[in-house]
Amino acid sequence: MSNDPIRPVPRSAAGFPDLFAGDVGARTRMIQTICAVYERFGFAPLETPAVEYLDVLGKFLPESDEPAGGVFAFRDDDEQWLSLRYDLTAPLSRVVAQYGTELPQPFRRYQVGPVWRREKPGPGRFRQFIQCDFDTVGTRSPAADAEACAVLCAAYDAIGLAREDFQIHVNNRKVLNGVLERIGLVDPERQIAVLRAVDKLDRLGIEGVRALLGAGRLDQTGVFMPGAKISDEQAKVVLEFVSAGDPDRGVVLRRMEAIVGESAIGRAGVAELRSIAELLDVLELPPSAVCFDPAIVRGLAYYTGTVLEALLTFGDERGNDRAFGSIGSGGRYDDLVERFTGEKVPATGASIGIDRLLDALKASGRLREERKLGPVVVSVMDQSRLADYHAMVRELRDAGIAAELYLGERGFRAQIKYADKRSSPAVVIAGSDEFARGEVSIKDMRLGEELADSIKDRDEWRKGQPAQRSVPRAQLLATIREILARPS
Amino acid sequence: MSNDPIRPVPRSAAGFPDLFAGDVGARTRMIQTICAVYERFGFAPLETPAVEYLDVLGKFLPESDEPAGGVFAFRDDDEQWLSLRYDLTAPLSRVVAQYGTELPQPFRRYQVGPVWRREKPGPGRFRQFIQCDFDTVGTRSPAADAEACAVLCAAYDAIGLAREDFQIHVNNRKVLNGVLERIGLVDPERQIAVLRAVDKLDRLGIEGVRALLGAGRLDQTGVFMPGAKISDEQAKVVLEFVSAGDPDRGVVLRRMEAIVGESAIGRAGVAELRSIAELLDVLELPPSAVCFDPAIVRGLAYYTGTVLEALLTFGDERGNDRAFGSIGSGGRYDDLVERFTGEKVPATGASIGIDRLLDALKASGRLREERKLGPVVVSVMDQSRLADYHAMVRELRDAGIAAELYLGERGFRAQIKYADKRSSPAVVIAGSDEFARGEVSIKDMRLGEELADSIKDRDEWRKGQPAQRSVPRAQLLATIREILARPS
Repeated sequence: MSNDPIRPVPRSAAGFPDLFAGDVGARTRMIQTICAVYERFGFAPLETPAVEYLDVLGKFLPESDEPAGGVFAFRDDDEQWLSLRYDLTAPLSRVVAQYGTELPQPFRRYQVGPVWRREKPGPGRFRQFIQCDFDTVGTRSPAADAEACAVLCAAYDAIGLAREDFQIHVNNRKVLNGVLERIGLVDPERQIAVLRAVDKLDRLGIEGVRALLGAGRLDQTGVFMPGAKISDEQAKVVLEFVSAGDPDRGVVLRRMEAIVGESAIGRAGVAELRSIAELLDVLELPPSAVCFDPAIVRGLAYYTGTVLEALLTFGDERGNDRAFGSIGSGGRYDDLVERFTGEKVPATGASIGIDRLLDALKASGRLREERKLGPVVVSVMDQSRLADYHAMVRELRDAGIAAELYLGERGFRAQIKYADKRSSPAVVIAGSDEFARGEVSIKDMRLGEELADSIKDRDEWRKGQPAQRSVPRAQLLATIREILARPS
Repeated sequence: MSNDPIRPVPRSAAGFPDLFAGDVGARTRMIQTICAVYERFGFAPLETPAVEYLDVLGKFLPESDEPAGGVFAFRDDDEQWLSLRYDLTAPLSRVVAQYGTELPQPFRRYQVGPVWRREKPGPGRFRQFIQCDFDTVGTRSPAADAEACAVLCAAYDAIGLAREDFQIHVNNRKVLNGVLERIGLVDPERQIAVLRAVDKLDRLGIEGVRALLGAGRLDQTGVFMPGAKISDEQAKVVLEFVSAGDPDRGVVLRRMEAIVGESAIGRAGVAELRSIAELLDVLELPPSAVCFDPAIVRGLAYYTGTVLEALLTFGDERGNDRAFGSIGSGGRYDDLVERFTGEKVPATGASIGIDRLLDALKASGRLREERKLGPVVVSVMDQSRLADYHAMVRELRDAGIAAELYLGERGFRAQIKYADKRSSPAVVIAGSDEFARGEVSIKDMRLGEELADSIKDRDEWRKGQPAQRSVPRAQLLATIREILARPS
C-alpha cells in the first residue's frame, strides 16, 4: 500500500454521518433515558445482529433471487444472500418464529440499534440511523395498545419534553377499512389510493385530499398526481370521516361509529378504540397528550389495527408546524410471524426516532442538557516535572473527575487552545514559580469565557487574567470541585 | 409474499448471535462502566458509521478493484465499493485525515461499537463483535503509552476484576527490530518468520520456538510448519531475548539493553520502555499489574513501537492458563494517516474485547452482577377489574419500579409461569376475595424458589404457599419495596 502513489481520499459515504463528542453524549444520554423507561414498563432488552439472511428479512424481489431495493445486500461465502437489517421489526419476527415457546409469552422486548436503508441520501435523510423499538408480541389486548401510548408519553417526559410539546395521534385501520366497506370500494388499488389521499391531509388540507380522491391533483412542482377516481358521493363520506377529529375522544368515537354504520370490520375497529379510550382515562392521559385522529394511516401493507404517530406540536422558526415530522410511530400488526409459520401472532408496539428527535430538540433549543464538559487539562510547563503533573491528574481522576495531562508537544498557548477545544472546565498550570511557592495556578475556562463576553477590551482583560488564581497545591482538588459545581 | 407457499426458515446466520435480556444487560452495564473510565481519563466519544468506502478501509486486493478477504463488501448505487468496518482504527484514521486541524490536537477519542469480519465462524469466533477502543492521536510521548496501561487497569478494576486476575504485558517493536538487526537478519520474510516464532512462546514453549526458528516443526495434528531457518548462533540470541522476562521491569530493561547492543533502533526501543517504566512507577502500577514481556509481538504490519496485551491470569477448569486469551490489546502505530496524507502521525491506544471478557468472567464465576430482576407482574384474575390492576401498575412505575400488567390471555398458572420466565421478583394477585377485603396478595418469587429448594415435598409446599401473603391494598408499594430490598 505504501508504494501506491494513488492515495485514497479520506471521506465518509453520503448518508453515513460521523458524530463527535457532544453529540454522541447527548444521544447516548437520550437512549439511556428511553431504555430506562422501557424497562420500567416491563420490556426486556434484545440484541439481534446487524446482518440477517435476505429471505428472513423478506427482501427478495418477487419471484426472483435478486435483492429488492432499499437494502444493502451481499452474498455470503456459501452464496446465500445476507443483508443489513432495514428495521428492528423483521429481526423481531425472526426471533419470535425461531425461538417460539422458549420465549416468555407475551414476549415484551425493546431493542435499540442502527438500521440501514439503501436510499438516496439528502438533508436529514440518512442511510444509517438509530431505532428505539418496543413491542408486545402475543396479545390481542387493547391494553397493550393503550400502554404503547403511555410508554411514548413517559419517554418524552423523561427526555425533557413538556406535555404541550407533543401529541400522540391514534387511529385504527379497521375503522378505515370500515369506511371503505361503507362506500363499497373493493378494488385494492383504489382502496390504497384512497388511504394515500387520506394520509396527505396534514400536508394538503381538505381540498387537496378531495382532489386526490377524485380526478387527481397538480402539485406545486407541476407534477400531476393521479386521483383515486371515486365518486363525489363516496368522496363525501371519506371527507366527512377525515374531518371527524375532535379534542374529545368520545366525540370522535361517536362520529366514527356513525360513519362506518353497519360495517362489521369498522365496528370492530371502533370497539377497539373505545377500549383504548377507557384505558387512557385510567392511565390519566388526556386528549391533549393522546388524541384520536381519523386521518392517521401509516404503513399501508403492515398495520392491521391500531396505528399511532407522535408529533411535535411546535414548528420551526418559519412557522412550519410539521417541520420536524414524526418523532415516534407504531401500531398493531398481526402478521408478524405468519411469513415464517403461517400462523397469525398478534403484536403491537412503537418506535422512537432518536436522531430526528435530537435534531428537533436542538433546533428548537429544547435539548435539556447540561453543557457537557470535557476533562480538566493539566498543562505541561516543565518536562522535568512530569511525575508531579501525573500525580495531579491521578488525584483528580481518583476523585471521579475527568482529567488528563496535556500529551502534545506544543507550548502554553496551544495547550490553552487545546483545553478550549475540549470544552475543559479548568486548566491546571504549574511552572517553576508555582512549584517554588508550593502552589498551582488554576484557570477557570468558563469564567474566562463569561468575562470575555462582558468586557470590551479583550487585550486588557487578558493582562488581568481574572479567571486565573493561585492556590496551595493541597487545595487543587477542592478548587477544581468548586469550579465544577458552578452551574454553566 | 403471503401467496408464496415456500416459507423462509427463521434462522440467524452463523457467527451472528442473538443476545437476550440478561446478557444484553450485563454487556450494556460493562460497556457503560468502561466508557465512564475512558471519559475519566479524558477521552471523548466518537461514532463513525458502520459502512465506509472500501478504499478508505484499505481493503482492496493489491492492484485490483476487488475486495480483499475478511470484509463484507458491496457496491453502492454509483458502483463504488462500500464495506462494513472490520475494526475501529481504520475509521479513526479516516476521521483524523478528513477533519485534520478541526480536531483537538492531540485527538483523544474512544469508540464502542460492533465490527464485522468475514471469517469462518466457530465456537467463540463471531463475525460481528463489539470493540471498545481508546486512542491518543498526535503524540510521541511515552506518557500516552503508559497511560494506555493505566486506562486498561482502571477499566478492569471498574468491572470488578481483582488485580491478581489480570496482567498487562508490554513490549516494544523497536526492541524486537533491534534484536533482528543485532543478528544481522535483513530479509523481511525471514524477519517475519522469526517474529511469528517468538509470538508462539506462550503456546509452544521455548523448544517449540527453537524449532520454528530453525528447520520447522511438526504440530500435534501432523501439519508441518516450516521454520525461519536462521543459524543456531542467531537462534541463541533470539531465544535469550524471549527468555529475558522477569517480574522486575528494571531487570528486563537491562537484559534487553545487553542483547540489542549497539543497534540504534533497539536502543531507542529500550529508552521508550524505560520512560514507560518510570511513569508506571509514578502511576503506582506494579509489575504484577503491568510487566515487560519480550515475547509479545502483536500485529506484524501494524505496530511501530509499544505493543501491549492484557491477559487473564486464571485459566479454565482444565488448567489451561491461556484458555480465555487476550482481553485487551494495543500499542503504538505511527502510520495511521500516512496512507491518506503521506504524513506520519504518531498514535497510541488499546482496545478491550467486551464479548470475550464477558465470556471469561461468566465461565469463571467472576461476573460481578446482581441477578438482574425482571418486572413485577400484576396478574389478571378478573377482567372487570382492569382499571384497578392498571392503577397498581402505575403506582409501582411511578415509584420507579419496573412493573407490568399481564397482557396475555391465559389463566393463573400460565401467568405465574410467565413471571418466572421474566425473572420477576414478585407477582401481585387480586381476585374478588382480595377486592372484597381491600387487600392484595403478593407472591415473592425468589422466596418461593428458595423455599422450594429447601423443602422436599413440593406438593406439600405448594399447598402452604409460605411465599405468598395478603396485605392491605395501601401497603402494596411498601411490600414490593421490601421484597426488592432483600438481596438475592
